[in-house]
Amino acid sequence: LPSNVSAAFSAAARNIVGDAFVRDDPESLEAYGADALKRGRPADLVILPGSTREIASVVALCQSHKVPFLARGGGTGYTGGAVPVRGGVVLSLERLNQILEIDPINLLARVQPNVVTGDLQRAVEREGLFYPPDPASLAHCVIGGNVAENAGGPRAFKYGTTRRYVLGLEAVLPTGEVVRTGSKAVKNVVGYDLTHLLIGSEGTLAILTEITLRLIPKPQARVALRALFGGVRPAVAAVTAFIRAGVVPAAIELVDEESLAALAGYLGRPLAPPGTGAALIIEVDGSPETVASECHLVEACCRTAGAHEIVRAADESDRTSLWEVRRELSASLRFISPIKLNNDVVVPRGRVPELFDLVDRLRTTGPFRIACFGHAGDGNIHVNILVDPTAPEGLRAAEQAVRTLFEGVVALEGSISGEHGIGISKAPYLAIELSSDEIALMKRIKTAFDPQGLLNPGKIFPEDP
Amino acid sequence: LPSNVSAAFSAAARNIVGDAFVRDDPESLEAYGADALKRGRPADLVILPGSTREIASVVALCQSHKVPFLARGGGTGYTGGAVPVRGGVVLSLERLNQILEIDPINLLARVQPNVVTGDLQRAVEREGLFYPPDPASLAHCVIGGNVAENAGGPRAFKYGTTRRYVLGLEAVLPTGEVVRTGSKAVKNVVGYDLTHLLIGSEGTLAILTEITLRLIPKPQARVALRALFGGVRPAVAAVTAFIRAGVVPAAIELVDEESLAALAGYLGRPLAPPGTGAALIIEVDGSPETVASECHLVEACCRTAGAHEIVRAADESDRTSLWEVRRELSASLRFISPIKLNNDVVVPRGRVPELFDLVDRLRTTGPFRIACFGHAGDGNIHVNILVDPTAPEGLRAAEQAVRTLFEGVVALEGSISGEHGIGISKAPYLAIELSSDEIALMKRIKTAFDPQGLLNPGKIFPEDP
Repeated sequence: LPSNVSAAFSAAARNIVGDAFVRDDPESLEAYGADALKRGRPADLVILPGSTREIASVVALCQSHKVPFLARGGGTGYTGGAVPVRGGVVLSLERLNQILEIDPINLLARVQPNVVTGDLQRAVEREGLFYPPDPASLAHCVIGGNVAENAGGPRAFKYGTTRRYVLGLEAVLPTGEVVRTGSKAVKNVVGYDLTHLLIGSEGTLAILTEITLRLIPKPQARVALRALFGGVRPAVAAVTAFIRAGVVPAAIELVDEESLAALAGYLGRPLAPPGTGAALIIEVDGSPETVASECHLVEACCRTAGAHEIVRAADESDRTSLWEVRRELSASLRFISPIKLNNDVVVPRGRVPELFDLVDRLRTTGPFRIACFGHAGDGNIHVNILVDPTAPEGLRAAEQAVRTLFEGVVALEGSISGEHGIGISKAPYLAIELSSDEIALMKRIKTAFDPQGLLNPGKIFPEDP
Repeated sequence: LPSNVSAAFSAAARNIVGDAFVRDDPESLEAYGADALKRGRPADLVILPGSTREIASVVALCQSHKVPFLARGGGTGYTGGAVPVRGGVVLSLERLNQILEIDPINLLARVQPNVVTGDLQRAVEREGLFYPPDPASLAHCVIGGNVAENAGGPRAFKYGTTRRYVLGLEAVLPTGEVVRTGSKAVKNVVGYDLTHLLIGSEGTLAILTEITLRLIPKPQARVALRALFGGVRPAVAAVTAFIRAGVVPAAIELVDEESLAALAGYLGRPLAPPGTGAALIIEVDGSPETVASECHLVEACCRTAGAHEIVRAADESDRTSLWEVRRELSASLRFISPIKLNNDVVVPRGRVPELFDLVDRLRTTGPFRIACFGHAGDGNIHVNILVDPTAPEGLRAAEQAVRTLFEGVVALEGSISGEHGIGISKAPYLAIELSSDEIALMKRIKTAFDPQGLLNPGKIFPEDP
């Protein structure tokens, strides 16, 4: 592909950010051209701006040269949101990595976009505060990317996704203007809610340059439990029972038999006795009294639903090791097959058993394995189709299975993506969930922000024929 | 003003919804032409559609005749959002008043837009569920209007505003298409979040025809407290102290001295001993053990901050009467003056004392009284400027005070509206909070939805010169 970037453009870019912060060596162009989806296209130029003002100047330069551009954060996305599929400039926000303010009186933080999520969590917890969103990649992903994708994680069941914590944004529009949305106030109904429109817009409407986040007091106590069941259905029955009893755990993670087998193979030790068809990891938090009484109720519901083993993490180190198992899942599956089609579908929680019925049917349709785990409380199950790399004809069957899966979850009143977004990997399937009128409206919104279509082109919307 | 509606239009409308559901008598045109702002303009035609399909047909008819139109719910808005300022058709959604589904397994409800908020609350509480948003008008306001305005209420401090509970919408676009946004799944990141863009758009982007709401388990216990202080500042100090101690009450309402005096006058009995300069009404909910320990902590913080009286509601009837006082506030103020400029400004909670400093300065600028009460936890204070009706020249000074107030809250990093929206009453002040670039972007979004500008024209944006 020919480069989108002229020598004059490069020179002007160096003029804006300084020579040291423009990269055009092949290694950099390659490295900044892919994310966790691992389907890249090298950038034509990588720019590392140091301020909002520099970003606005680079954007104006891109507009005047008609060069495509996009912003890149931690590069941990699963759907290609940060991949420059049409080439052009990748604006890496890695220098904008400061926590600007933590305000324990007003319970808020103001951060630059490339603050690592886990770092922010630790910083606010030192002040007795809590930032709940906990995507599995929290050691590497950044707040800007979390906002762009509306990231979730296990604790979303009780605490909601990133959306619930964003009070305001500073952003550079594709046309170069700097806007501020929302405010430090926890309520704001002045004009259209640009904050909430930008959340989850996958970097296609604006470049986020500063984020004001709401925090909450840190829960005083937390306890994690693991319960083992003969299969997925009794596990879901247990979840329904304790939620109906009024318990709202911080997290309710479900791991199916195939995922448990993958973990055992990867870790080299069995995790559960024979006959285990599903595991629940449940975390309860709050005041010590509430945690104690809710744990009791959760355990009772699990036993009634048929759990054959229930372990309560006795201390924080037990708790950590219990959760580490959950965090090793993605690596375990990659160990089985490098060709993993990762689908974060979501259905109303009561329909999770029907989702597993559908997965059982898909298992018969090709030479692949399917491992499922995820956020049972939210009905948000990661359905991983693992294609045998020695039987690459299986990939076509797997892609057909993805389509059948997506049609199935929409029929179950769910959604094809609960956390990861559309990007490039799911764009071909968008019309399974959205009508042509809905897609046309979204495209008109995109045009209202980006009339030239230069910001992060080729994402979300299926290619026009 | 000449009517926007021709005889041919009326006949076509009658054809769509039936003769019985079209009104053109003067009383109806008047009655449907105003909301709680009490600044109306009669409708040219009132239509009572019975279904989404009929709404879509009426909208298409309006488009083909270039007749302005808007949807009306409970008519309880404070900013003129449902007032047909440019005439045309008022589509009253009063026939769309059914609760379609309450699903205790998936913790959701599906409702038509004109379900009264309080009715929905009672219906879900019968199932052990809870719909937290509780605007003061909950006996009359409707869910569709709550979504259009992103309504709040006392419980927003702990539970968030209406936004947090909306999973999906069915809506008729101004161009006549019926779209569905979101789904029954609690997470959905497929395309731009039209659900959250429509929430708070004040009926200017689409007509909401069905709403899917998330519910939560009903808290097992709740206790209300009233604490009296010498002034607003120690009351705010108490709030800061118990929040820093990790307590998140369901509601923290603040009532200032002027409001207490108005209540005493209206109810004909003193509510607090002499020397009382502020009252807090605090409600704690959750498990019985947590409620008990949090009440204890709240009371201790109030005492330390100087409360001279703390009353705990002993039972549900005490609790109700304690809250009734709060609910009588608006009526009490109207009793003092029929000319009440009601401003629901919001600042970061720690800056509430600075907001009261500003109000004290405003009190010296004209022949009016200013009574403040509201949601102290959210920093969302209703600043009511009560103009002496016998000194109508006071109105101009009051309008100047409103402008100074709005400039002041923006300088305090707050917002000019936390709950009521912009509508017509605050449109002249929009540019105090938003830049011209931000307003221009919002107008482009409006055009993406409504290229002819026929849906609810004249709202939010200041008139072009």
